[in-house]
Amino acid sequence: MKQYLQMTADELKAELNAVDNEYNAFAAKGLSLNMARGKPGPDQLDHSSALLTIVGDKNDVFSENKVDCRNYGGLDGLDESKTLFSAMLDVPADNVIVGGNSSLNLMFDFMAQGMFSGFDGEPWMKQGEVKFICVTPGYDRHFAICEYFGIKMLPVAMLSDGPDMEEVERLVKDPNVKGMWCVPKYSNPTGTTYSDEIVKRIAALKPAAKDFRIMWDNAYAMHFLDADNDDKLLSILDECEKAGNPDLAVMFSSTSKITFSGGGIAAIAASKHNLDLIKARMTIQTISGDKLNQLRHARMFPNPEALREHMKKHAASLKPKFEVVVNTLQSELGDLGIISWTEPKGGYFVSADTLPGCAKRVVGLCKDAGLVLTGAGATYPYGNDPLDNNIRIAPSFPPVDELKTAMKLFTVAVKKATLEMLIEQ
Amino acid sequence: MKQYLQMTADELKAELNAVDNEYNAFAAKGLSLNMARGKPGPDQLDHSSALLTIVGDKNDVFSENKVDCRNYGGLDGLDESKTLFSAMLDVPADNVIVGGNSSLNLMFDFMAQGMFSGFDGEPWMKQGEVKFICVTPGYDRHFAICEYFGIKMLPVAMLSDGPDMEEVERLVKDPNVKGMWCVPKYSNPTGTTYSDEIVKRIAALKPAAKDFRIMWDNAYAMHFLDADNDDKLLSILDECEKAGNPDLAVMFSSTSKITFSGGGIAAIAASKHNLDLIKARMTIQTISGDKLNQLRHARMFPNPEALREHMKKHAASLKPKFEVVVNTLQSELGDLGIISWTEPKGGYFVSADTLPGCAKRVVGLCKDAGLVLTGAGATYPYGNDPLDNNIRIAPSFPPVDELKTAMKLFTVAVKKATLEMLIEQ
Repeated sequence: MKQYLQMTADELKAELNAVDNEYNAFAAKGLSLNMARGKPGPDQLDHSSALLTIVGDKNDVFSENKVDCRNYGGLDGLDESKTLFSAMLDVPADNVIVGGNSSLNLMFDFMAQGMFSGFDGEPWMKQGEVKFICVTPGYDRHFAICEYFGIKMLPVAMLSDGPDMEEVERLVKDPNVKGMWCVPKYSNPTGTTYSDEIVKRIAALKPAAKDFRIMWDNAYAMHFLDADNDDKLLSILDECEKAGNPDLAVMFSSTSKITFSGGGIAAIAASKHNLDLIKARMTIQTISGDKLNQLRHARMFPNPEALREHMKKHAASLKPKFEVVVNTLQSELGDLGIISWTEPKGGYFVSADTLPGCAKRVVGLCKDAGLVLTGAGATYPYGNDPLDNNIRIAPSFPPVDELKTAMKLFTVAVKKATLEMLIEQ
Repeated sequence: MKQYLQMTADELKAELNAVDNEYNAFAAKGLSLNMARGKPGPDQLDHSSALLTIVGDKNDVFSENKVDCRNYGGLDGLDESKTLFSAMLDVPADNVIVGGNSSLNLMFDFMAQGMFSGFDGEPWMKQGEVKFICVTPGYDRHFAICEYFGIKMLPVAMLSDGPDMEEVERLVKDPNVKGMWCVPKYSNPTGTTYSDEIVKRIAALKPAAKDFRIMWDNAYAMHFLDADNDDKLLSILDECEKAGNPDLAVMFSSTSKITFSGGGIAAIAASKHNLDLIKARMTIQTISGDKLNQLRHARMFPNPEALREHMKKHAASLKPKFEVVVNTLQSELGDLGIISWTEPKGGYFVSADTLPGCAKRVVGLCKDAGLVLTGAGATYPYGNDPLDNNIRIAPSFPPVDELKTAMKLFTVAVKKATLEMLIEQ
C-alpha cells in the first residue's frame, strides 16, 4: 500500500472511509480490554504459587541466623533477602536495605527525605526551586512524585543507548538541579538499556549540587524476553565508586514483576553513607518490613540460578505477547510511514511514536471502542508530550487472543487518527 | 517490714547491705533477659500459625469480589480487610484504609503530610513553630516522630480516666498546637482506658487550629487480659461526628499484636474527608498494600467472634505474666512505700512509679545485672521524665520462669536504688 504521506486528498478520504468502517465494526463489538499498566498476566502470577506456602509451619519461620520472622525487629531487612537483591542488582549484600512490597514507596519516601530533611545539607526545599532531570519518554509515576512535591521537571531525551548526556551534563551545572530519574535497563517505556559508556558518564557526573542524587530505578533488572539475549547493565554503584562519586546514585528495585505484584518485596541499594541517611529516617518511621515475606522470597530463590530459571518462565509468558505487538504493528502499519516503535529485548513495554499530533486521538479512539491504553502524554512530565506522538503499549496483562484484537484495534485507530489529521491539514 | 521512709540512717544502711548481697548474687548469675519492648512471646505468635497457609493455592488468591490479590491495585485495601478493622475499631468499613504491616509507618506518613502538605491549609511547617500535645507517660515512638519533624512536644498528664482535659483545653487555644497523641485503650504504658466522659470531651475540643488532628493510636483495641472484664471505649469517630468535629480525629491500628508483629496488617480509620486527603498522597506514594496478607487476615478472622476467640488465646498467654509482675511487686515491695504501679486490664505494659530520682538508677542496675528494661525517661517527650520516677515494664516476651527472675531482680534494684538515694540525702 501507498504510504499515507504520499496519498492525494482523494486517496486519503477513500482510505479514511475504509478505515472508518473497520473502526466502527470494532466499536460495535462492545470490547472491554485494558492495556493501561504493566501488570503481569495471571499465568505469570501462577509461576510463583509455591511462594504461598513456602513458609508454611511455625517451625519454618526462622531465618538462617535464627531470627523469628514473625516478630518485631530487623529494620533493614533479613540477611538472606539482602542476598537475593544482591544477586539481582549486582551489588554487595551489605549495601542493601529490604523494605515492604513497593519500590515506589521507597522512592517516594527517599524523595520526601531529600525535600524535607536533605542529604548532608539543607533540605532541598530550603534551597530555592528544586529541579529534577527526567529522561523522556519515561515513567509517569516518577513524574507524579516530582509534581506532588512541587519539583520542576526538566525533560531530557532518551537516545538509543540512554539519556542525552550532553544535555544532562549541561543541566547539572545548576545547583538547583537535585537529581535525575533513570530506568536504566529495559527502560519504561522504550525498552532501552543504558550502554556502558552512558553508565560511566552518569557515574562521573560532577553536579554543582553536592546533594544531587540519581534515582536509579532498576525495575527490570532480570526481565529479559530471551535469556540468551539479555542486555548487560553496568553496576552504577561500582561505577560511582570508581569515579569518586560513591553517594551519587541510589538504586531501587522489587520483586513485583518477579513474584506477586502486590505481594512482593522491594529494596534499596546504595553506599554505606546513603544507607545510614535512609536508616536514620526509617528507624523513626517503622519497625521493619514484613520479614515473613522476605523469608518466603529468600527461600523461593536460594541462589541466582533459581531466580534466572524462574525469570525464564516469565519470558516464556511474555515473549509471545511482545511478538503479537510487533508483528501486528509491522503487518498492519509497517508500510504506511505513519508510526515507529521499539522492539525491546526485555521489560514490559513497547513505545510507539505516531506522526506528531496523533497520540491523544489514537488513545481516545481506542478508549471509545473499549480498549484502555496508558494515557497519551503520560510518558512525559506534566502529562505534556510536546509532539503528542508517544504511546506506551503494555502487552503483559491480556491473554494473547485478546491482545491480538486489541492490537488490531490499535492499528485501526492509528490509521484513522493519522488520516483525519492529514485530511484536516 | 518497716517502710523505707520511716527507717533510721542505721536501719537504711543495714537494709542496703542486705539488698547489696541480693543484687550481687543476681549480677553473678550472668543473666541475659530483655523486657525492653512490647514484643509478643513466641507462644503468642504460634496462635496464628494457620495464617501462614490460609491462602495456600493459586485458586485461593481471589477476594470476595474476585480481585486477584497477587496483582497490582487496590490502593486503600481489600474490602474484607476493611471489614475486619471495622469490627475491631467500631467504625464503618467505608471509613477504613488498610495499608502495609506497620501502623507506625501510617502515623509517620500522616504526620509528614501534615508538616509538608497540610490539611486544608498551609503545611504545618509554614505556620511557625508546630506543637503537639503528648499525654505522659506515653509511647516513645510517638515522641520520636515529633522530635524527627522538629515538632515541640507539650506534655499533659495522664490521669486515672484519661488525659488532664483542663490542660488540653487550655493548650488547644494556641493555633500553633496542631494535634495530640492518644493511646486511648489500655494505654502505653499505664494501661488506662479513656472514660466516656473524656472521649466526649476530646471529641468536643474546639482547637484554634483548623488543621488540628488527634492521632488516636488504638493499638490495643482487642487486647484484654480477661474477655469478661474488657474495658469499653467509645468510638472517637462517632463522637467527633456528633460534636460537629468530623475531621478532628484519625484512628490507627494494626494486627501486629494479634497475628504476627512483623507480618500483620495496619489500618487508618477516619472521616471521608480525611481519607480523601490521605489517599491523595497515597496514590502518588504506592500502588497498594500487600493484598495477599490482607486476604490472609480476613480469612483468619471471618467475623468478630473469631477475632475475639483468638484474642482470648493471647489473654491466656499474657495474663499469667501480668500476674507475675503485679504479684512480685506486691510481695517484694508492697509494704515498703517506695513504688506504685498500675494493674491494667489489658494492653502490654505495667507502669511503675518509684520515688522521685530513682528510675534511671533502677534501669541501670537492672542492665548491669543482665536485664534490659525500656530506658528510663523513654515514656516522656525528649526522654525527659521530670521526676525521674517512671519505668515501663513489658512482660510479654520472656517466658514465665525468666519473667519471675527478672521481676525479682527488678524489685531488688528498686530497693537498692531507693536505699542509696535515701542514704545520700
